[in-house]
Amino acid sequence: MAAAAPPPPPTPAPSAPTGLSDSTPGGHPLFSRIRLATPLDIPYIQKLIHQLAIFEKLADLCTATESDLASTLFKSPPFHSFTIFLLEVSSRPFENDSAFHSQNFTPIERIINLDHSVSDPEAGAFANGINGDVVVAGFVLFFPSYSTFLGKPGFYVEDLFVRECYRRKGLGKMLLSAVASQAARMGYGRVEWAVLDWNAIAIKFYEEMGANVLPEWRICRLTGPALEAHRDAN
Amino acid sequence: MAAAAPPPPPTPAPSAPTGLSDSTPGGHPLFSRIRLATPLDIPYIQKLIHQLAIFEKLADLCTATESDLASTLFKSPPFHSFTIFLLEVSSRPFENDSAFHSQNFTPIERIINLDHSVSDPEAGAFANGINGDVVVAGFVLFFPSYSTFLGKPGFYVEDLFVRECYRRKGLGKMLLSAVASQAARMGYGRVEWAVLDWNAIAIKFYEEMGANVLPEWRICRLTGPALEAHRDAN
Repeated sequence: MAAAAPPPPPTPAPSAPTGLSDSTPGGHPLFSRIRLATPLDIPYIQKLIHQLAIFEKLADLCTATESDLASTLFKSPPFHSFTIFLLEVSSRPFENDSAFHSQNFTPIERIINLDHSVSDPEAGAFANGINGDVVVAGFVLFFPSYSTFLGKPGFYVEDLFVRECYRRKGLGKMLLSAVASQAARMGYGRVEWAVLDWNAIAIKFYEEMGANVLPEWRICRLTGPALEAHRDAN
Repeated sequence: MAAAAPPPPPTPAPSAPTGLSDSTPGGHPLFSRIRLATPLDIPYIQKLIHQLAIFEKLADLCTATESDLASTLFKSPPFHSFTIFLLEVSSRPFENDSAFHSQNFTPIERIINLDHSVSDPEAGAFANGINGDVVVAGFVLFFPSYSTFLGKPGFYVEDLFVRECYRRKGLGKMLLSAVASQAARMGYGRVEWAVLDWNAIAIKFYEEMGANVLPEWRICRLTGPALEAHRDAN
């Protein structure tokens, strides 16, 4: 979709505890990490994109295959073109962190202390890493934009997504803030994205992060046969 | 501004003819050309951006200097990052056309037959080229975007602008169609831009070009101190 970001959905129902020890207040650390995605992550990214499309009630518009993504992403250095931060979580500290350090970006790690451990019904499909304990929980895809009024680049966030069982824990905020932080450190002028006007929860979340929702602007889109009709127009 | 495109404004008053010969039906060819902009065009581009800001009633948000533009534009090959098509017009055929041919883009030329010659009050400020007869009339700035749903890149049009005395002659359509044509030829999935919801003339113009205006999406923006606050958030 044009852009989207479904943070905390309306029903604030945490995952059911699976045992007595799961209800220890703050006793369940969730180790979270944001790192640059690599081509090896494409299978997870493709699944996350399709989950986002279902959330947005736009699944019929979502046709991206792993092959589509592989042929169009990771063609340029990070931040200069389409860039993906991957969100991973683990119940244990990350072991192979140095593998994801690069001159472009140092992974961001945070320990979130939960009262209950998370029950992840898709842990198998999203398991990543050598020890099997690391799970892909979300992503953000963004790319450089340009503000002629500021005379500066910015970032446009196309997608921000956290899998349902990991929402309402500050992870969506952590992902978006990582993009904003990167923009600020690069001297960029702004970060923009689009939100569905019926997604009041998301709008509140974005406003709390300091964003303004612009009431007057509407997105125009030329696609499919209507775009193709311009191919030889000149 | 986020994005914009002010095509034909409401008052359809063509420039007053300056002499008898100016009213010959179709007897006034306006030679028009779209070519890739170069760093030498920055002074014109800066003036055009400020005219656009005034049109959008957003002049107070427009701070871009020539130096800002020079330090952020023309850093990558065309179409891979921020790209500008410049619109030039002349009452005579273009002479130095070959200078603007490149492996990336062949200039698009069209002859528009007008009933009256155009009276350009800013011809001096926008005169370009060796023979002094070529005038910069508008521009479009765009950059690659990415659709996760399509698994394909697209273009996002940040600005589309034609100077007032050259509007209502099909030049805005020619500029936007040039971007759409380029997108189609590169196999891209869509072209998007933003429009102010009060600009009914622009909306009609875009819909006639085949675009859909998306009613549900709103643009969110994080900028200034609110963006800076995220710098060390991680």
